Amino acid sequence: MSPRRRRKSQSAAPSEEEVLRILEKWGQSLTEQILKNRYPTLEIPVRTLSNTIWDKKRKILVLGPKKARRSFFDVGEAKRFMQTVLMLSIIVRARREGDYPTIRDLYYTGKHTIYYVDEMGRRRSEETWNDQRESNAVIQDIEVATGLLREHMGIMHDAKGKIVGNVIIRSKGYDIDLSRLGSGAYAVPPNVDKLEIRRVDADYVLVVEKDAIFERLNEEEFWRKHNCVLITGKGQPDRSTRRITRRLWEEFGLPVYVLTDADSYGFYIYSVYRSGSISLSYESERLATPEARFLGVTVTDITEYKIPRNYIIKATDRDIKRAQELLRYPWFKESKAWIEQLKLFIKKKEKVEIEALSGHGFKFLTQTYIPEKIKQRKWIV
Amino acid sequence: MSPRRRRKSQSAAPSEEEVLRILEKWGQSLTEQILKNRYPTLEIPVRTLSNTIWDKKRKILVLGPKKARRSFFDVGEAKRFMQTVLMLSIIVRARREGDYPTIRDLYYTGKHTIYYVDEMGRRRSEETWNDQRESNAVIQDIEVATGLLREHMGIMHDAKGKIVGNVIIRSKGYDIDLSRLGSGAYAVPPNVDKLEIRRVDADYVLVVEKDAIFERLNEEEFWRKHNCVLITGKGQPDRSTRRITRRLWEEFGLPVYVLTDADSYGFYIYSVYRSGSISLSYESERLATPEARFLGVTVTDITEYKIPRNYIIKATDRDIKRAQELLRYPWFKESKAWIEQLKLFIKKKEKVEIEALSGHGFKFLTQTYIPEKIKQRKWIV
Repeated sequence: MSPRRRRKSQSAAPSEEEVLRILEKWGQSLTEQILKNRYPTLEIPVRTLSNTIWDKKRKILVLGPKKARRSFFDVGEAKRFMQTVLMLSIIVRARREGDYPTIRDLYYTGKHTIYYVDEMGRRRSEETWNDQRESNAVIQDIEVATGLLREHMGIMHDAKGKIVGNVIIRSKGYDIDLSRLGSGAYAVPPNVDKLEIRRVDADYVLVVEKDAIFERLNEEEFWRKHNCVLITGKGQPDRSTRRITRRLWEEFGLPVYVLTDADSYGFYIYSVYRSGSISLSYESERLATPEARFLGVTVTDITEYKIPRNYIIKATDRDIKRAQELLRYPWFKESKAWIEQLKLFIKKKEKVEIEALSGHGFKFLTQTYIPEKIKQRKWIV
Repeated sequence: MSPRRRRKSQSAAPSEEEVLRILEKWGQSLTEQILKNRYPTLEIPVRTLSNTIWDKKRKILVLGPKKARRSFFDVGEAKRFMQTVLMLSIIVRARREGDYPTIRDLYYTGKHTIYYVDEMGRRRSEETWNDQRESNAVIQDIEVATGLLREHMGIMHDAKGKIVGNVIIRSKGYDIDLSRLGSGAYAVPPNVDKLEIRRVDADYVLVVEKDAIFERLNEEEFWRKHNCVLITGKGQPDRSTRRITRRLWEEFGLPVYVLTDADSYGFYIYSVYRSGSISLSYESERLATPEARFLGVTVTDITEYKIPRNYIIKATDRDIKRAQELLRYPWFKESKAWIEQLKLFIKKKEKVEIEALSGHGFKFLTQTYIPEKIKQRKWIV
């Protein structure tokens, strides 16, 4: 098979210069307001659930049109205004000096005590922020206000993803061939948009929930035999794993299949890959893969693939409650196949792990289950 | 600098054929006993705390000489005997057929219901094992009885480690240059002993506790500028991260420096790299790096590096209790430097994260703290 042609990404990353320019411009808008004798005010899209919208056509969660005006001279907003400008100044400085701070570094760098005299003449003090939730929240504000991902701003964080397959990636001047890593894998870096995906020669992407399954499929070179790209996000995927999955779909047109346990947790992991997470809805355009397909394990697989009764785990009340929540999410609610699966899960109260398929022999997963499901189009969406 | 000369490892891995031969031989010893009309009995080193010994000279935890005899005709041991033989047979089959099951796969494959008639003539049934703790325990028994690591037996599990640096690794016929991975890293596979470390051109190994710090040092190419190998085990390290660290020290004589937060949890992480963990003491010979050095963050760094007061976190009762436990471990108890650090920690009840050093600017950690500590030999052991 010849390599996949690359399409231009709709969500391409800005250059380093552009990032700095966007951040500086936002800061300059404040000084301009001040010079014009206006009250300095920031306009920031609202990230609450009420402003999170299910875009039916694009099949992703997006932020709605609501914007909040954060004004320095409003007593209720002055602190958050200060925090936003403080964080912006730290990020701009890091970009100018070529530093790559972690979100925790940013928290510490900005943390200090402000001493002031209040309206009654009392000496008082206040911390710029007390915990990382506060500093992370303003990073997110800067993301939605500028349209930049924090990764674009050179902000580092944990990165869980691994990838192998017939893919050539270019990074920092090196061509990295993801089919020549032996028993190991390529650990996906935080900023996936700095990678250039140069060449992909594969039929599909297989995303597996569990790292141990990834290791096994990699050791057996499943991806080579079945000409696919193998990815894991180790449970609930982080942003960079979702971003590289999205890019393989968007830029190279690869179908994406997700393999998880048959339980509410696994189903939700699939939905995060596909539609985005509520807390990061503003990132869905770049992180979600709205055509991702759920390969399994489905609730109906339990009977279809004759999973031995003593491999079945009783679902807890929490599992069932979570499944009922999933049924209310539009991207599940609008799918006949998912309604059937989730209702059956709630009714039967039975869950099953991927590894339960080993009951039919260690080769069953790789030689029968995955290839059969793909060939016979037995995925669900 | 010229590349490091490789020394022969004292704990070299056996070949695939050898692994199968050792496992089969252990099984055959049972049939031989039966053919000689003896009661089939397995001899297995005891893995309890009471049989865990601190080897002062080698500076690692090791298993003592105590062995348990597990006999099929002893009612109290028959089940564990059955479980051991069952697991052995599954592992042997996987090795013969070239499969790489995960520990969870092994659990499911062995799990089934045994029906029998008891001494009162009642029909009864029992599960081979009820949870993975039981199946994992017999895998460990097989490890200590055969002297093989589960990785040698082709058993897969999660692998957390990442590595970059001037290192060339050979795996499955490919030479992988760990200095040409761009913003990404090499995800360490479960079975590190299948990797051949062909060439190392570095002055030391820097192990960082936190993945986000690893990402930052990698993005800034700290390892290239300071000619070191950079490793993270993402918190409490797993077996493969410890194994690759050990091999770089053992085979290439590289000094190993560990960088963690200044708290009981970080100190314990260092001690796991250096001396081994109590629950895996039988693996220390292969996993521990008994000359690993603790680079920081130390309790005395708080004053020495003038950490701002509002960056200091109050230690919890649990932190203090843990520190008191650490003081009782021989490898801490025998170190004057560690007694000082731990006592000061317990007295001051103050902990500090690596990221708190960012208070002196983002470049402080990489341009001052780490190089200065190494150059001035300010590590502790």
